[in-house]
Amino acid sequence: MDKKTAKVIFQPSGRRGEVETGINLIEASRQLGVDIEALCGEKKVCGKCKVRIETGTFQKYGVTSGLEHVSDWQKEEDKFITPSERELGFRLACAAKVTGDLLVFVPEESRAGKQVVSKAARDIPIEWNPAVRLYSVTCQPPTFEEPTADFERVCTELAKDFDLKDLRADLFALRKLPTAIRKGKWTVTVAVWNGSEVINFWPGEVTDYYGIAVDIGTTTIAAYLCNLATMQVMDTVSMMNPQCKYGEDVMARITYHQMTPGGLERMSDDLIEGLNTLIKQACTNTFPPLVKKKDDNGKVVKDADGNPELVESPEEGVEYLRLEPGDIVDMTFGCNTAMHHIFLQLDPEPVGLAPFPPVVHHSLDLKARDLGLVINRGSYVFVLPNEAGFVGADNVCVLVAEEPQKYEEIALIIDIGTNGELVLGNKDKLISSSCATGPALEGAQLSCGMRAAPGAIERIKIDPDTHEVDYKVIGREAWKAFSEPKEMQTKGICGSGILDVLAELYASGVVAKSGRFAKEQKSERFRSNPDNPRQKEFVIAWANETSINKDVVITQKDIRQIQLGKGALYTGCKLMMRRMGIEKVDTVKIAGAFGTHVDKAKALAMGLFPDCDLDKVMSVGNAAGDGARAALLDVARREEADWIARNVEYIELTVEEDFEQQFMESMQLPHMTDEFPHLEGVVRPEILHQK
Amino acid sequence: MDKKTAKVIFQPSGRRGEVETGINLIEASRQLGVDIEALCGEKKVCGKCKVRIETGTFQKYGVTSGLEHVSDWQKEEDKFITPSERELGFRLACAAKVTGDLLVFVPEESRAGKQVVSKAARDIPIEWNPAVRLYSVTCQPPTFEEPTADFERVCTELAKDFDLKDLRADLFALRKLPTAIRKGKWTVTVAVWNGSEVINFWPGEVTDYYGIAVDIGTTTIAAYLCNLATMQVMDTVSMMNPQCKYGEDVMARITYHQMTPGGLERMSDDLIEGLNTLIKQACTNTFPPLVKKKDDNGKVVKDADGNPELVESPEEGVEYLRLEPGDIVDMTFGCNTAMHHIFLQLDPEPVGLAPFPPVVHHSLDLKARDLGLVINRGSYVFVLPNEAGFVGADNVCVLVAEEPQKYEEIALIIDIGTNGELVLGNKDKLISSSCATGPALEGAQLSCGMRAAPGAIERIKIDPDTHEVDYKVIGREAWKAFSEPKEMQTKGICGSGILDVLAELYASGVVAKSGRFAKEQKSERFRSNPDNPRQKEFVIAWANETSINKDVVITQKDIRQIQLGKGALYTGCKLMMRRMGIEKVDTVKIAGAFGTHVDKAKALAMGLFPDCDLDKVMSVGNAAGDGARAALLDVARREEADWIARNVEYIELTVEEDFEQQFMESMQLPHMTDEFPHLEGVVRPEILHQK
Repeated sequence: MDKKTAKVIFQPSGRRGEVETGINLIEASRQLGVDIEALCGEKKVCGKCKVRIETGTFQKYGVTSGLEHVSDWQKEEDKFITPSERELGFRLACAAKVTGDLLVFVPEESRAGKQVVSKAARDIPIEWNPAVRLYSVTCQPPTFEEPTADFERVCTELAKDFDLKDLRADLFALRKLPTAIRKGKWTVTVAVWNGSEVINFWPGEVTDYYGIAVDIGTTTIAAYLCNLATMQVMDTVSMMNPQCKYGEDVMARITYHQMTPGGLERMSDDLIEGLNTLIKQACTNTFPPLVKKKDDNGKVVKDADGNPELVESPEEGVEYLRLEPGDIVDMTFGCNTAMHHIFLQLDPEPVGLAPFPPVVHHSLDLKARDLGLVINRGSYVFVLPNEAGFVGADNVCVLVAEEPQKYEEIALIIDIGTNGELVLGNKDKLISSSCATGPALEGAQLSCGMRAAPGAIERIKIDPDTHEVDYKVIGREAWKAFSEPKEMQTKGICGSGILDVLAELYASGVVAKSGRFAKEQKSERFRSNPDNPRQKEFVIAWANETSINKDVVITQKDIRQIQLGKGALYTGCKLMMRRMGIEKVDTVKIAGAFGTHVDKAKALAMGLFPDCDLDKVMSVGNAAGDGARAALLDVARREEADWIARNVEYIELTVEEDFEQQFMESMQLPHMTDEFPHLEGVVRPEILHQK
Repeated sequence: MDKKTAKVIFQPSGRRGEVETGINLIEASRQLGVDIEALCGEKKVCGKCKVRIETGTFQKYGVTSGLEHVSDWQKEEDKFITPSERELGFRLACAAKVTGDLLVFVPEESRAGKQVVSKAARDIPIEWNPAVRLYSVTCQPPTFEEPTADFERVCTELAKDFDLKDLRADLFALRKLPTAIRKGKWTVTVAVWNGSEVINFWPGEVTDYYGIAVDIGTTTIAAYLCNLATMQVMDTVSMMNPQCKYGEDVMARITYHQMTPGGLERMSDDLIEGLNTLIKQACTNTFPPLVKKKDDNGKVVKDADGNPELVESPEEGVEYLRLEPGDIVDMTFGCNTAMHHIFLQLDPEPVGLAPFPPVVHHSLDLKARDLGLVINRGSYVFVLPNEAGFVGADNVCVLVAEEPQKYEEIALIIDIGTNGELVLGNKDKLISSSCATGPALEGAQLSCGMRAAPGAIERIKIDPDTHEVDYKVIGREAWKAFSEPKEMQTKGICGSGILDVLAELYASGVVAKSGRFAKEQKSERFRSNPDNPRQKEFVIAWANETSINKDVVITQKDIRQIQLGKGALYTGCKLMMRRMGIEKVDTVKIAGAFGTHVDKAKALAMGLFPDCDLDKVMSVGNAAGDGARAALLDVARREEADWIARNVEYIELTVEEDFEQQFMESMQLPHMTDEFPHLEGVVRPEILHQK
C-alpha cells in the first residue's frame, strides 16, 4: 500500500478517523477512543479482542473495507477463531494490522467498557397467555377395528382432555408426527398456535419451551429468549443491524433499495442471516452445548452405565446441542416501518416519499420458514403492526409495554432514536407523530460524541467568570478538579453529557441564546479548529486529560446539531398538545437509551419537552423490546397492538401551518424558561432565569 | 457394445422385450407392439417421434437405462428438441439407435395410436363456487390527511363494495401490492381465498383466472387446467408418474422409502418436478406463447402504431408467455393414500403395515410454495382427504363426483386401478374397502397385455368344437374371419379384451371351472411355451396376423392373474354387501379406464361384481379426476369430501373370518351363474349355464 494513513471506522460506536497504516486494530481503537478488551496485553493469548472486518463499499462512510485491508492471518488466531467465524471476517484485533480503509465491528463481548445502557429486559407486569401452548396426550395405538390416522387420533385426545376442536396441522409439523408418536410410545406433546393450528410434535412429555422477542432497531438488534412456560428471560443478545453497511439511517437504506436492483432482497437477507446468528447465540448461551468428557489421555470418560459423560462446551461444532434454533416455537418482532418493510421485503419506497404510506399497518402472522428464519419450521412469527410511515411497530411496542390507553392521566411518551417518536394521550384518545431529531441527542455524529462507556464525559460545570471547565467521566468517581489530568482518561462526550455541556455553555455565556458562540470569550479554550479555521470550537478536555491524545471539543456545528434535535422534539410535543387542546401533560416517559441517562431536570430546563412535574418524568428503558416481549408472552397484547395501530391517530407535523415558526423558536436556548418555575433549586438559577 | 440384444421397455404401455442392438427406437417399438408417430417415415424431418430416455437403475424392470445406451445425438434432432428437452433425455425415436438396455417413455403426443381411453374431463354438474374469487377495486391515493397503508386502503374498498371483512394477506401477495396498485393507477384486482386471505394482486382489472385439478395415480398423473371464471376446462395433460422408476406399485415405493435414506424426499421431488412440468405444459397449451413476427428477411414486423406484431409460437424460450405457471391461483389434488403421503413427504411406512393407519385423514390447505409448486406463490393447494390406509383421496374424489351419499338407491362404486377400491351404500350409510385386484384386469403384466390402442384384441369368439379363434382388434372393423391374416396387424390383448378371452376360453372348454387348461384340447393352439415347457399357453393370434411377428398367447399364469383379480373384486363386493345386510345393489358404477371398456354383460357373467340390472351398470370414466375438478370449482365439494372421509366406514376385508373361503370360491369360473338369470340372451347360454 502506498497510502501512509487509512480511514478506520469502528461499529457500533461509530468512532472514526485516520490512523497510520501498520498499527494493529487495538492501537487504532485506542487512538479513536474505542475500547477493545485486551486482557493479555496484545500477546495473542487471551482471544478476548475478536473483531469482525466488514466487507464491501460503504458509501455513507466513504470507505471500501475488506479482509485485504488488514495484514495476513496469524497462526495464533486459529486458537480463538473458528473456521466459520474466520469466514465471517473475524480477526484478533491485536494480530490484525491496518493496511487500508476499514469498517470494523466490535462485538459486545469484545468491548472493554461494556455499554452502561444495556438492552436487558425490564420487569414489567405481563400475564401468562402465550400464543403457543403445549399439550401432552396419550393415544391408543391403531387396530384393525380402529385404524384411524395418527393426526385424528391425537385430535380426539386433545378434544377430550383439553376441549381443543377443529385443529389444523402445519405440513412440516405433520411430517414429524408418525415418528414422534411411535418414539413416544403413543404419548406425544403437541404445540398448538392460537388454539387453532398444530405447529410441532415432540415424542413423550415436554414441559419447557421457548420463544424469542426481537426489537429490530435501525442501528441495533436486541433479542430476548424466554421460557414460554415460566416467562423467564433466559438470555438477552444484541448485535449491530447488518444493514448498517447499506446506510446508517432509514432514508439511506430506502435509497439503496431504489438505486440497486436486488438491493431490498440483499438487505433483507443480511438481516435474516444476522437474526439467525442471534437466535443460535441465544440458544447456546441459554444451554451451553455438551461434548463427551475426555480424560487426560483423550479417552472418553464413561459413567456407571457405560454411557459417555457429557460436559458443557463453549466451542462450536459440538455434538449435543441442548437447545437448538429448531426448538424455538414462537417469535415476535417490533421494528420501525422502514425496518419492518425491509425485513419482510415489502417495497419501502413509498414509506420514504410524502405522504409516507406503508404497505400494511396490521400485524402479521407469518411462517418463520417464509422469512428464512431457522426456528421450528411449523412456527409462526408475529410482526407487530405499523402506525404510520414514520411511526412503526417499535412505537406500538412502547405503547404495548406502557399502556397509556389504560389510564386517565395524559402521558407524553418520547422514544428518541435517530427519529423521535412521540405519543400523547390517555384512555380517551392517543395521537402520535414523529420528528427528525437526528442522532445528536444521543451523542452520535458529534465531533467528540461517543457511547455511554468509561471515559465518556457525563457531567460538566463551566465557570461563568473564567470559562474554566470541570467535568466527570463515566467510570471515575472524582471530578477533574480533584484528579491529575492523566487520571481522567477522557475519550469523548456521551449522549447524557451533551445536554449538560450545552446548558453550561449557555449559562456561562460561552454561547448565546441563539446557540452561536458569544463574540466575547474569556478563555483560550475557545478557538478556531486547527484544520478548519472557519469552524469555531470550545475545548472541554485538553489532550493531556484524555486517553486518545486529542483535545475533546464541542464545535459550532455540534451545537447546531443539538439545537436542531431539541427543537424538533419540542416542536413536536407542543404541536401535539395544541392538537389535543391541552396545556400540560401529567407524565413524561422517555424510552430508549437516551431516557436512561438524560438528566431529567436539565432536559426540562433546556426545553427538550414541555413542562411536567419532575417526579412524573421517568425513563422506561428499552420499552420497544419490552413490548415485543409482552406480545410474545401474552396474546392479548397482540390484539392490543392492533387496536393501538388502528386507534392512535398519526399527525404529520411538518404540514402544520406554523411548523417552521414553531421550530425556529424551539431551537433557541433555553426555550421559554418561565414555563419551568418549579425547577428553582434543581437547575442553577442563572440557567433558568436568563432571558 | 459386445451385447447383441438389449432389453427395451416402453412406458406408459409397459410393453417390453429383447431387441437386437443397432435398430432404431421406431423399429424397436414396432417389434414390441408400441406405436410411435412417424409421419415422415423415419427421415428425421417431421419431429413427431420424440421420446424420452429414462435414466437410472430400475430394479422392478431389471434394467439400467440411460442416454449412453442409445447412439449419438444427430444434428437433425436440434431442430425438434430444445436444449432443455435434450437435458431431460428427449431424442427422436427415428434417430436414436438401441445400444443397450433402455426404459423409454413415449409422450402422449408421440403416440400414433392415441389411447382410446383418455383422461378427458367429463361433463358432470358442478356449481360455480370456487375457493378463490377475484375482486377489482379502485382506491383513493394516499394524502397527508389520509396516509393509510396500501393494504388497509384496499381492504376498506373490499369491505364497502363486497362486504369482505377481516382479510389477512399472504406475505408474497403483499410484496406485489405496492407495485400493482401504483401500476394500476390505484385500481387493483385482488384474489381472495375462502373469503379470508388475499393471495394475489394484479394491477388494474382482471376477469379470467385459472386453476388446475390433478389426479395423481400410482402410474399416471392427469391435470385439468380450468378457467375459474367460466368453469371451462382449457386443457387436459397427463404424464407417467415419475415415481414409477422407484417401483411400479405402491408397496414397492414404500419399500424404497424404507430402504433408502432420503428416498421419500427423492420420490417427492421427482413428483413435484413432474407436476411443475405438467403445469407449464398446460399453460402453454392453453395459450401458446407469442414471439415477435418476422418477415422473410428476419426483420421484426410492426403494426400501425409501430409496435411489434406478435404471433403464436410453439417453441420454448419465447418472449411473451400469455399464461404463466405463476398465474395459476388454485390447485386441487386427489391421490391414493400412499401417493398422498409421498407427495407431501409424510412417512408412508405405517400405511404399508397392518392396520395401515395414515398420518392424516383430513383435507389439507397447503401453501403451494411449501411443496415447491411453481404456481402463484401466495396460493394454497387443496389436498383431498384420505378415507383409510388403502382407500385414499382418489376414492373420495370419485364420491365427490358421483355423490352416492345424496341418493336413496344403493350404489356400488368400483374403481379399478392396481388396487380395487370399493364403496357401497346410499344416503344413510356408506362403507368402503379395498382389494388387491392386481394389474391383470387392466391387461397389464400379462404376457401379451397391452394398452387399449390400435392392434389390441378387444373381442373374441372361440369355437367350442374346433377351438378355432375369431377376433377383432381396435382400429379395424372387420373380424379376422373376414380379413387376410396380414391385415390384422395384431399386437396384443387390451384390458377390455381380457374378460372376453377368459369367457370364451371357458365357454369353449379350453379352460375348466377351476381356471386350469382342460386336459383334453382340440387344437394345436394349445401348447407348451417354447422357452418354458412347463408353462402351458393358448395361441390367440398367430405371428403372421401380428405386426410384432410373434404369436399372441394367453398363458396359464395369465389366467391365474385374471382369476385372482376378479376373485378379489367379487369377494370384496360380497363381504361388503353382507356387512350392509343387503342382497342386491341398485346401481354399479365403474370408474377408471377399465370401466370405459369393459363389456358390462361379460363382466357380470364372469362374476366380477354381484348381480345388478344391466342398464344400471355404468361407466363413470375418470371419476377421480372429475372429483378433483369439482373440488376446484366448488368449495362445497371440499366440505363434502371431508364429510365423506369422516363418514365412510372403512372395512378391512382380509380380517373377515371366512375371507379365505370366499376368495377361493370367487376365483372359480363363472361364479354362481344362477345369480344372473336376466342375462339370458345377452351372454351366450353355454357360458351362463355351465356348472
